Amino acid sequence: MASDAFELVLHRDTVRAEWCDYNGHLRDAFYALIFSHATDALMDHIGLDAAGRAQSGHSIYTLECHLNFLREVKAGDEVQVSTLLLGADRKRLHIYHSMSLRGELAETVENGPVAASEQMLLHVDTRGPKSAVFAPEVMARVQAMAAEHAGLAWPAYAGRVIRLP
Amino acid sequence: MASDAFELVLHRDTVRAEWCDYNGHLRDAFYALIFSHATDALMDHIGLDAAGRAQSGHSIYTLECHLNFLREVKAGDEVQVSTLLLGADRKRLHIYHSMSLRGELAETVENGPVAASEQMLLHVDTRGPKSAVFAPEVMARVQAMAAEHAGLAWPAYAGRVIRLP
Repeated sequence: MASDAFELVLHRDTVRAEWCDYNGHLRDAFYALIFSHATDALMDHIGLDAAGRAQSGHSIYTLECHLNFLREVKAGDEVQVSTLLLGADRKRLHIYHSMSLRGELAETVENGPVAASEQMLLHVDTRGPKSAVFAPEVMARVQAMAAEHAGLAWPAYAGRVIRLP
Repeated sequence: MASDAFELVLHRDTVRAEWCDYNGHLRDAFYALIFSHATDALMDHIGLDAAGRAQSGHSIYTLECHLNFLREVKAGDEVQVSTLLLGADRKRLHIYHSMSLRGELAETVENGPVAASEQMLLHVDTRGPKSAVFAPEVMARVQAMAAEHAGLAWPAYAGRVIRLP
C-alpha cells in the first residue's frame, strides 16, 4: 500500500465555496478546518464523543499542528481524511491525517494525498484546564488503535522541519 | 526584547463567535485563518497586493504551515499578529507569525504569545501553476525586510519537530 493511504477513514466532506480564496482554491486555513473536523471524528472513535465530554468535563486540545499542502482543491471537490495513530501515552495522541479526493475526481487524478497534517493532541480536564490521563475505556481504544497501526510505514509528511531547500 | 515580540504588526483582528468550538474557545483552524490573513497582509507589504496579483498572474501558495497553540482565546478577544522573515530565496519566503492579545486583555495577562505559526511560502505563476521568481521590485522589498530582521533572535516555536515527550 502507498505510505499515505491508510484505511481508517473517519471523516468525509465537500469543499464549500466560502472556504475558497480569490484564486478559487481552498484556502490553507480551511484544509486545517477539515482536518480539525477529522480530529473531532477521531475523538468520537476513541469514546470521547460530545455526550461523554459534557459528562466528564474532559476534552482534547491541539498543542501543535503541521500542515503540508500538496495539491490545489476547488469548491465542490469531495474529500476524505484517513487517520493514523503514530504514538500515544497516557495523556497524549500523536496523529497523522491524510486528505485525498473521493468520488469521480479520485478516478481522474493520480490518487495521492492533496494535503497532510501531523498533530499532537493533549487530553485535558477543562475544569482546570489541566492535562488529564485518559479514562481506562478510552485508553483501551487508543491501545487497540496503536496495535492496529503499529505495522504501517511512517508517513511521508510526518517528522518534518521547515527549512529553505 | 522578548524573542516572540517582533515589531512588524501587519494584521489585527477580533475573535468571532462563529470561530469558536463547543468549549467557547477559538478552534485550532481559526487560529490558522487569522494567520492566513496575516500572510495576505505580508503579501501586500512586499508589493504583492491584490491589484498586482491580478495584473501579473502571480501569487503566493502556502507549501507548509506549522502551528503552536499556547493559550486559549475566546470570542471577542482582540488579537494582533507580528511577522518575522526567517529566510528567503528568489521564489520562497520562510516566515514566522506570533499572535498576541491587544486591548485591555494585553494588560491583564502576562503578554506572551497565544499562538505561533511558521510557514514556507512559494511564489507562483498561477497560469501554470508553476513556481516563479519574484519580480525585482518585490525582491527588493523582501531583501530590505530580511536585512531588518537579520539581527533578531530565532523565535521559540520555529524549527520544531513533533514528537512525544
